[in-house]
Amino acid sequence: MKATPVIAIHGGAGTILRSAMNSETEARYHAALEGILLAGQRVLADGGSALDAVTEAVRLLEDCPLFNAGHGAVFTAAGTHELDASVMDGATLEAGAVSCVTRVKNPVLAARRVLDVSEHVMFTAAGAEAFAQAQGLEFVDPSYFYTEARHQQWMKARGTSGTMLDHDATTKFAFENDPIDPDKKFGTVGAVALDAHGHLAAATSTGGITNKQAGRVGDAPLIGAGCYANDATCAVSTTGTGEMFMRMLAAYDVSAQMEYRGASLEDASHDVVMNRLPRIEGRGGLVAVDAKGNVVLPFNTEGMYRGFARVGETPVTAIYR
Amino acid sequence: MKATPVIAIHGGAGTILRSAMNSETEARYHAALEGILLAGQRVLADGGSALDAVTEAVRLLEDCPLFNAGHGAVFTAAGTHELDASVMDGATLEAGAVSCVTRVKNPVLAARRVLDVSEHVMFTAAGAEAFAQAQGLEFVDPSYFYTEARHQQWMKARGTSGTMLDHDATTKFAFENDPIDPDKKFGTVGAVALDAHGHLAAATSTGGITNKQAGRVGDAPLIGAGCYANDATCAVSTTGTGEMFMRMLAAYDVSAQMEYRGASLEDASHDVVMNRLPRIEGRGGLVAVDAKGNVVLPFNTEGMYRGFARVGETPVTAIYR
Repeated sequence: MKATPVIAIHGGAGTILRSAMNSETEARYHAALEGILLAGQRVLADGGSALDAVTEAVRLLEDCPLFNAGHGAVFTAAGTHELDASVMDGATLEAGAVSCVTRVKNPVLAARRVLDVSEHVMFTAAGAEAFAQAQGLEFVDPSYFYTEARHQQWMKARGTSGTMLDHDATTKFAFENDPIDPDKKFGTVGAVALDAHGHLAAATSTGGITNKQAGRVGDAPLIGAGCYANDATCAVSTTGTGEMFMRMLAAYDVSAQMEYRGASLEDASHDVVMNRLPRIEGRGGLVAVDAKGNVVLPFNTEGMYRGFARVGETPVTAIYR
Repeated sequence: MKATPVIAIHGGAGTILRSAMNSETEARYHAALEGILLAGQRVLADGGSALDAVTEAVRLLEDCPLFNAGHGAVFTAAGTHELDASVMDGATLEAGAVSCVTRVKNPVLAARRVLDVSEHVMFTAAGAEAFAQAQGLEFVDPSYFYTEARHQQWMKARGTSGTMLDHDATTKFAFENDPIDPDKKFGTVGAVALDAHGHLAAATSTGGITNKQAGRVGDAPLIGAGCYANDATCAVSTTGTGEMFMRMLAAYDVSAQMEYRGASLEDASHDVVMNRLPRIEGRGGLVAVDAKGNVVLPFNTEGMYRGFARVGETPVTAIYR
């Protein structure tokens, strides 16, 4: 008997400041997560592929200004936005990724197009934009990615007025649109899904780290670090201090532990997030699903925006532990 | 008792045309490989780190026009050179990488600097060049990377005069500087080493694929795909059809099989190169070393420029099976 199709998503992990949260802000996050889960769930309920469901969910996460990807992405040290995304199909192990794009409205759609039509897996910077343009994807003026909340985070991170704000009790309210501690800002968005045909897929997208140096590439667009899917094991999307996820091959490691040491999805994910990443001070979490429909959403930070929805059931969303 | 320090290198794998080889060309490759091995061996013999040995070996491979990295890199479809490199320290799991640089003389030195001084792991394109420039690394005019042999390969690959050359018996002599079948050109260079302190390291560098689309990133700069090192398991540098190595996390998979299923270096490497990669038509090979000083150099193509040198012993070099 086939497992019920299911989708799980995340909207970033970090030191989510409870003090900066109020019931209205929390409700806004829950509503955004639920709406996106319902959209992904619908794709799966209609018999759509896991690949289509994760692409659609991440597209919506990119469009939502609450999360650090697409519209709402953080600022680089140069005051620009550089976006990364990846997608992987567990049925074929095919993958697509773009890094450092600045004008593609939905980086995950560019990654998906790489998967669909290119013999390559990854394009970066100007070459990635040229590919996306040739594919007819929607381009936007870089100002599209601007949001006031992210701009304030950036101003604070670059120290323009940081000293003052650091001891300013109003700081936490200035960021009410994003209660993840802006000094430890490493949001990413992602989705994993199991479809009615038993196939798995994963997708991840990010604006990176606030005030990052131009050209920095994190784990989000890297297959095996921020995104991995294999029907034989699991689909994984990660979020956190990207560099540590890259050095640990965090997403692929969950799969490798399942394949090579017979670990369950839960054991493997727990080991990666709670044991291996902390060894190198890696902070964050992941969402993962296996072919039996098991879903895990572990994180080693104070919170992670997350949720999952099985076809035919009410979506579940959460923020804190 | 500590194992004898050892370094292993590769200069690319592919359908090396025996018909295009003559004893003089072969001798030139053997001499180049041996000279570079001796340089790496010297670093290790002097008590230097595996990290320094692989960095030095790959720097020399980049400088040598026979190999597809640095001077001698292949041309993109745009007629330019885009270079990628990575390095990883098995003692700390720290890593550095750059992709899509066009004017840094030695991409591996930029990757090493990322490892040494940056909180990040990877920089791409203009941001990578800005980082390298700020670090005082040597820059060159893009024409530095030009070699006549690669230019001819590119002219052929882009079809300018391809039809004629395809049936022209002189073709093979036109490429006598690089007898790897230019139509299946996927050279990379790399090194792995074990030092006297028991530490492992790996480094990889490439010009990519002849006539590749601008912005394409292959496995060479990706930690876990083209390069991986962990004192607890092994150090690996790969070469081949990069996309398949990315989708298979080929370098990290060797380590994962050793750690999670107790495979030997030889068994794990054999499985990756002879079983897993061919499943998705992945062609190429890798060099790897473990903490006991075991060295393997498997490949599933007709040939791979390769060699290894233990401290106190004569280097061994080879081209064909």
